[in-house]
Amino acid sequence: MTLRRALILANFEKAAVRELAAELEPWLTERVDEVRLEGDIRGFSAELESLTVAERAALRPDLVVVLGGDGALLGAVRAFADEPVPTLGINLGHVGFLASTPATRWRDTLERVLAGEGVTEERARLEVEWGAEEDRGARAMALNDVVLQRGSHQGMVRASLWVDGVWVTNYRADGLIVATPSGSTAYSLSAGGPILEPNVDALVVTPICSQGLSNRSIVLDAKGELEVRVEGASGLVTLAIDGQAFHTLQRGDRVRLRRHPKPSRLLALPGLDPYRRLRDRLGWGGEHAPGNGPGVS
Amino acid sequence: MTLRRALILANFEKAAVRELAAELEPWLTERVDEVRLEGDIRGFSAELESLTVAERAALRPDLVVVLGGDGALLGAVRAFADEPVPTLGINLGHVGFLASTPATRWRDTLERVLAGEGVTEERARLEVEWGAEEDRGARAMALNDVVLQRGSHQGMVRASLWVDGVWVTNYRADGLIVATPSGSTAYSLSAGGPILEPNVDALVVTPICSQGLSNRSIVLDAKGELEVRVEGASGLVTLAIDGQAFHTLQRGDRVRLRRHPKPSRLLALPGLDPYRRLRDRLGWGGEHAPGNGPGVS
Amino acid sequence: MTLRRALILANFEKAAVRELAAELEPWLTERVDEVRLEGDIRGFSAELESLTVAERAALRPDLVVVLGGDGALLGAVRAFADEPVPTLGINLGHVGFLASTPATRWRDTLERVLAGEGVTEERARLEVEWGAEEDRGARAMALNDVVLQRGSHQGMVRASLWVDGVWVTNYRADGLIVATPSGSTAYSLSAGGPILEPNVDALVVTPICSQGLSNRSIVLDAKGELEVRVEGASGLVTLAIDGQAFHTLQRGDRVRLRRHPKPSRLLALPGLDPYRRLRDRLGWGGEHAPGNGPGVS
Amino acid sequence: MTLRRALILANFEKAAVRELAAELEPWLTERVDEVRLEGDIRGFSAELESLTVAERAALRPDLVVVLGGDGALLGAVRAFADEPVPTLGINLGHVGFLASTPATRWRDTLERVLAGEGVTEERARLEVEWGAEEDRGARAMALNDVVLQRGSHQGMVRASLWVDGVWVTNYRADGLIVATPSGSTAYSLSAGGPILEPNVDALVVTPICSQGLSNRSIVLDAKGELEVRVEGASGLVTLAIDGQAFHTLQRGDRVRLRRHPKPSRLLALPGLDPYRRLRDRLGWGGEHAPGNGPGVS
Repeated sequence: MTLRRALILANFEKAAVRELAAELEPWLTERVDEVRLEGDIRGFSAELESLTVAERAALRPDLVVVLGGDGALLGAVRAFADEPVPTLGINLGHVGFLASTPATRWRDTLERVLAGEGVTEERARLEVEWGAEEDRGARAMALNDVVLQRGSHQGMVRASLWVDGVWVTNYRADGLIVATPSGSTAYSLSAGGPILEPNVDALVVTPICSQGLSNRSIVLDAKGELEVRVEGASGLVTLAIDGQAFHTLQRGDRVRLRRHPKPSRLLALPGLDPYRRLRDRLGWGGEHAPGNGPGVS
Repeated sequence: MTLRRALILANFEKAAVRELAAELEPWLTERVDEVRLEGDIRGFSAELESLTVAERAALRPDLVVVLGGDGALLGAVRAFADEPVPTLGINLGHVGFLASTPATRWRDTLERVLAGEGVTEERARLEVEWGAEEDRGARAMALNDVVLQRGSHQGMVRASLWVDGVWVTNYRADGLIVATPSGSTAYSLSAGGPILEPNVDALVVTPICSQGLSNRSIVLDAKGELEVRVEGASGLVTLAIDGQAFHTLQRGDRVRLRRHPKPSRLLALPGLDPYRRLRDRLGWGGEHAPGNGPGVS
Repeated sequence: MTLRRALILANFEKAAVRELAAELEPWLTERVDEVRLEGDIRGFSAELESLTVAERAALRPDLVVVLGGDGALLGAVRAFADEPVPTLGINLGHVGFLASTPATRWRDTLERVLAGEGVTEERARLEVEWGAEEDRGARAMALNDVVLQRGSHQGMVRASLWVDGVWVTNYRADGLIVATPSGSTAYSLSAGGPILEPNVDALVVTPICSQGLSNRSIVLDAKGELEVRVEGASGLVTLAIDGQAFHTLQRGDRVRLRRHPKPSRLLALPGLDPYRRLRDRLGWGGEHAPGNGPGVS
Repeated sequence: MTLRRALILANFEKAAVRELAAELEPWLTERVDEVRLEGDIRGFSAELESLTVAERAALRPDLVVVLGGDGALLGAVRAFADEPVPTLGINLGHVGFLASTPATRWRDTLERVLAGEGVTEERARLEVEWGAEEDRGARAMALNDVVLQRGSHQGMVRASLWVDGVWVTNYRADGLIVATPSGSTAYSLSAGGPILEPNVDALVVTPICSQGLSNRSIVLDAKGELEVRVEGASGLVTLAIDGQAFHTLQRGDRVRLRRHPKPSRLLALPGLDPYRRLRDRLGWGGEHAPGNGPGVS
């Protein structure tokens, strides 16, 4: 991996992040032609969005290093949504599903990455378009999930789900989550959804607090085109992209979702146990502690 | 579809099945060179199993018509497990997930099928091998699911799950279900699993009454090789293949599962609503009755 | 039941409600000394709340008849929260859990009620107080549930649960529902909670989309005093009373809940099948249709 | 508490149990008139059952000390089912819901108990009778649960639930669990049921892998009489009492359940945190680790 340009994205409100950035920046500057450090991920993403595609391409780095948790990484991925940049998430808290490198190992991981020995995990993303029937002008990209949900003072959302133009079912619920495999371990899991391994070529649709009690998740082929129609609501409906960007829908609006042709590319240290994050997240380690080795005590 | 040889499989205990067979057999005999009618699906499958592969191949029809529900179809598919035969399930009760043609429409469906206009749905199957570590002699095929479960007088089963040789997690539960997309709407659904569309290239692993409360289903890429190891049990563990064939496992035994290269081929009338069975099964029709057309009232 | 004064509460936006009110009012006027008809339940409740306790008591009827569904009945019960009035809910849509008399039977039900032959179901209510630690000035009454929930643009709510001053557990979730048996079949059920028979002397606490996956409901003795503390939130937290009145909480606020000494008194026709509403709500009728009589087909 | 006679029940297969018994027996002999030590709980219970009620009463101790986990305690309680004896469960493994005293604290707990300062928790029990319609000869007592379940080679059980002679609903499932509050944290929890605080005067009915997807638990007033009828099954149905004693039911059989007038009396050290066991069992401690004190970090 011959790197000309690296970008460090971090949220400087946390002291630990500032400290890590102060160590990391000079280290990286010695090894890469050009290093840029940004201390406000949201601000930086917003700044990029105001540029033309060509201007944005001109700023495009060869490597993004994110200091923070899964939330910071979701924000960083948004910055270069059109043309994903290999991204390394260095996690300062619990091991994340996206930001998988613990802060204690940033040095050896980056060394391996710069030596071209990093592992690149491709993670499917969702492309979302929404608006009134005729006019679906708005568009965004999600790495984890796209969520339709009622306002907290409002009644149920009524929505219908369509796959490749064919009606699947209706929902009467607090909301509806469409998640990628990456997102299957985030909000969708809390709403009762299954876990999808990152390499499963599928999306999962999970209702939130469905009034119908047979509220099961549906796992759909990622090659299809999904549409969610807002059939009714007592007020406005929020459309949340990766839990970070929010838009407003109203009755009759349609949300079209498909897998984006270009996945995110997440970097990691080779040899990491792919299921450890899962066991940690689920508390499985504690409940079924294996004996010596991976057996069962 | 030029058909030389058709086989009708039916369970003759039910009068309605005998009556339908009495109508269907002469109708088919007029249109196909050779028609064979069997009134005991289990018996016929067992008979086939006692033959050599070559003898079985010699008996292989070009079309199987099954009279009955999903259970009958699962049994029929077992009869020609090595080399699946296009199979039409004619359902005498509720519309099934596998036997999707209602009895009232047998004539036009078969006409279309014989005219080569039937729709063929390919349904992934599981190949299962099991036994002690060194010796995994036993082998079977499943269209819906492979289930490990405790005897009704016994304590929890402890099992571990492995994918491509990597440890995923441990279970302490009544049992464990590995299901194909077809099977995701059967027992796995009752145990809390998600629904997988038939064309999703994945398998789903769902624990039954897990002692650990984070008992979520995991959806795994069907290209992987799964292994379930019986780590402990207070007695014998049952291995159930499609809920019809039963074998016995003991502590230390291993069950290896992979997608079989040849899917089952289920015939259906073209133009059937692919999600109607799902809505019927889930009672979604009733709970969220759409207004006129597929909208929401 | 010697009735001096009856109050009819209805929401006049719906034509069917206006028509029923036009029939019911003269019928009741012939049988009761004084009948008052209000066509705006929310407006009427708000008007009452602005009065003194004595003024409100002076207006107190002997019977309230509500035309509408469960939502209308919840609003009507709020109007006389301090001193519950026997209330008959006449349902114009699906049979409700609270408004249990179908519109087609209003006449014979009211005749029985006026003859003193109506059945009175007592339904436990919750008394809620909330505010900062030292000052818990605000107070309300709920028949169904008290819900804490995050705003739709905000992150998880962190809350702790206490019973009689003893810490039970912490939640990190979209919200938390404390429901009476009446409310156990409403929002709490959608969030995964169990059904509590109306006469069970208990409350049920159910998290909404808990991040912890062992998110089970806890059923607590209604004689205890519950407290929910808002430990953290990324913004304001909404406190919803019966899904109709909304208040705002912030970090550090406490919500104290106890069973109110005076239950609501709901009137019904004698001999109604107490479990029919449940089977209807749950779609159990459809899924397990009993044969002739209450057997199983 | 003036104690004349103490009984120590233990399962001598485990070395740790034998060691603890060897310490405990002489200690107790110095403080109580008569101490009896039994090293085979099942054998001892069976022996008692072969005696007359009078003979059994003559053997009745004033205190039972059980060395083992919840399973051992369930067995010990069965020994004196007619007339419960105050029972102290000393737990050699994880803290149990029933056997709540850790082995490290046996001495101070017994000292307090002998000084009359132990806490006695009353735990509701179920009385079960079953048999054909006219003849319900068989009878047993359960502290945790009564479970009807299908054999592992058999199809669904169809059963109906009745409360005080009124039909509630039908089930088509792997089985049905009727649990006391004590049992709500055992098998019922694994099957998706809620947690009932020990002092809630209720029972909970939870289906196991219900084919109907609206498979929610129902919490019923413990003052009612429940009946479960076996409407159909493809083979024999097992009736399990506290997961330890097994009986056989067939189509048409009825199981009648009511709260037994005499609860079990479990002894414990005063001041134990009543919710710690719950948090441990549910892994809540780990997932929502409180900061200093019971706040939320």
